[in-house]
Amino acid sequence: MARDFSKVIGKIDSIAAKVYEDLEQSEIPYLLLPTRTKSNIQFNEQLSVWKYGKNTTERSAKSLDGAYMMLRTMYMVDFIKEMIKTKKSSTLREMYYISEGWDLAKFHSQPESDMLAEDLEVITQCMREDFKLRPEEDGARVIGNLTIEEITRNNEKKKIHCQDDVGDSGYSIPYNVEPEKITFKSADAKFILAVETGGMFDRLVENEFDTSNNAILVHLKGQPARSTRRFIKRLNEEKKIPVLVFTDCDPWSYRIFGSVAYGAIKTAHISEYLATPTAQYLGVTPSDIENYKLPTDSLTKEDIHALKSELSDPRFQDQFWKHEIKLQLSLGKKSEQQALAKYGLDYVTDTYLPEKLAEMGITKK
Amino acid sequence: MARDFSKVIGKIDSIAAKVYEDLEQSEIPYLLLPTRTKSNIQFNEQLSVWKYGKNTTERSAKSLDGAYMMLRTMYMVDFIKEMIKTKKSSTLREMYYISEGWDLAKFHSQPESDMLAEDLEVITQCMREDFKLRPEEDGARVIGNLTIEEITRNNEKKKIHCQDDVGDSGYSIPYNVEPEKITFKSADAKFILAVETGGMFDRLVENEFDTSNNAILVHLKGQPARSTRRFIKRLNEEKKIPVLVFTDCDPWSYRIFGSVAYGAIKTAHISEYLATPTAQYLGVTPSDIENYKLPTDSLTKEDIHALKSELSDPRFQDQFWKHEIKLQLSLGKKSEQQALAKYGLDYVTDTYLPEKLAEMGITKK
Repeated sequence: MARDFSKVIGKIDSIAAKVYEDLEQSEIPYLLLPTRTKSNIQFNEQLSVWKYGKNTTERSAKSLDGAYMMLRTMYMVDFIKEMIKTKKSSTLREMYYISEGWDLAKFHSQPESDMLAEDLEVITQCMREDFKLRPEEDGARVIGNLTIEEITRNNEKKKIHCQDDVGDSGYSIPYNVEPEKITFKSADAKFILAVETGGMFDRLVENEFDTSNNAILVHLKGQPARSTRRFIKRLNEEKKIPVLVFTDCDPWSYRIFGSVAYGAIKTAHISEYLATPTAQYLGVTPSDIENYKLPTDSLTKEDIHALKSELSDPRFQDQFWKHEIKLQLSLGKKSEQQALAKYGLDYVTDTYLPEKLAEMGITKK
Repeated sequence: MARDFSKVIGKIDSIAAKVYEDLEQSEIPYLLLPTRTKSNIQFNEQLSVWKYGKNTTERSAKSLDGAYMMLRTMYMVDFIKEMIKTKKSSTLREMYYISEGWDLAKFHSQPESDMLAEDLEVITQCMREDFKLRPEEDGARVIGNLTIEEITRNNEKKKIHCQDDVGDSGYSIPYNVEPEKITFKSADAKFILAVETGGMFDRLVENEFDTSNNAILVHLKGQPARSTRRFIKRLNEEKKIPVLVFTDCDPWSYRIFGSVAYGAIKTAHISEYLATPTAQYLGVTPSDIENYKLPTDSLTKEDIHALKSELSDPRFQDQFWKHEIKLQLSLGKKSEQQALAKYGLDYVTDTYLPEKLAEMGITKK
């Protein structure tokens, strides 16, 4: 992973060099990259994450569309170099609009330009952040006994303690969480609890679960942004703090867990930078629906389809997940984190979480 | 507006008293409240905001459904009193689940319980925040020369400067922004710029627009949460700083402006606490599409319908809006804030905003 932007420039320059070489040899220029589908992700034993397999896709200038795409690639490489040089960054949306000035190379839709940015990542083994490209998503929030040093836009070092120096909304994770932007000065916690919904995050903050249980709370905000996953990964690795994931009880939430623990299909080329292989799923589990008699909704057709698809997803092949997914299909029910409020606002912190943590061996009964 | 929770308790107790009285007089209990539709909002000259008119709706226990609703009202009043007593708060979602324990009074869906919470606001003239109820939404972000004092969950006073004491993601607005939670210690800015998208907010931050133009930047995050509108309103009123709204150029964005400036239909009962009547629309305007030759998309059927509906919306009856909306209908086009990136990443801060600010008389040409 390139931290050093001169390395990034070297890597993207080599793409242009490849195309130039093809042309010089009177060959039709093409680029090879891994196929980005579920059937082409494999478990990498060494890294303990899911990575792309050996299937490749060719992007060639043979067709007119392919030639346009090659032209766009050259423009984008140029734009990225310009941003690195001027210390700017841009959103993926802005880059799409920037292409208005690229004449024939103009993109027709944002998915086209997003896809090309991903292609460049895959080819160069860099991250979008190395290209100074960022998403629209807002940063997630963090509360806990953790001191972060952030290099601000004015190049000042700012130390922020994620309990003492922030309001009750916590510290907002910036879109760039690489070491050139943030470092973890100190972190004292028994575990990191990654929480799907804002309602539950605020509940845990209000109930002071972070101080009473020595936990760092991270709000995932649904399907977590890359920066959130990378933040959790770095905190886990650098400070050796275990990660627990607390979500709703439905197939979409299991995918959230999957992307935190094993990586997502779309970003499997950088799984080792985003995924936290030791992350554990805390709940809500289908078993919890029964054990805690939680309020439920019926599974929809889409839910059932997604659960069945997870049964064949390489990320959900262990005993635990096979059992829980099958149980859920037989129950025909799903539930939400906040459903625990059935027993009152303190139930989750006084009863549910302590019981689950003890069960998982994180704390003593 | 009740700050004092004993007043809130007094007001919600009086609802119970009204029902009790009706029953004692052998009458079927009922509650009267204003009809919450577009046809029943009127401009209040004194407050310069849109408020509900004289049409009322009766909630009576005559029908079985009505009787259940009355029962739920009593339970909810009780739950709110309990939260005030124990210094707790809950999300609207949690309240829905809490009702699982209310036996016959259990809600069947969250819209039902949300609606009842709004009814209680309308009847008591309190705000949801007074009832300790809050939404799921995340707080928006603020960057600028502004010092906030926040009373944290531990009852400590924490001073936060929204440039020097925060990271580049800014200060997160908490869900409660009433004076018992936050006060503005100092604010030195020529104007507040409320920005629709996160991409544009981050662009302005990266380009240091807040420091170079002495502006307080507030991220609206699409249709702004109540807390964001209330935050802007208080900052405008208490610190006498003008508010400018910077959004995409489409009918949905005009509604965002409308809710900041005049109040939203759903919350017209508390418009005077949420709306900033002096807020001005900066752009992107349909005229800008022509003047700046911006990239556009065609209006969809839904867009056209929404624009036509705005032509009859009491909040969009002035010259400016009539002209711009008609222009947009004749252009058949819409555009986005980030479309300004067509001319490069600095165009918005170097050219567009300075020109618009001069045109509006906020800064000198």
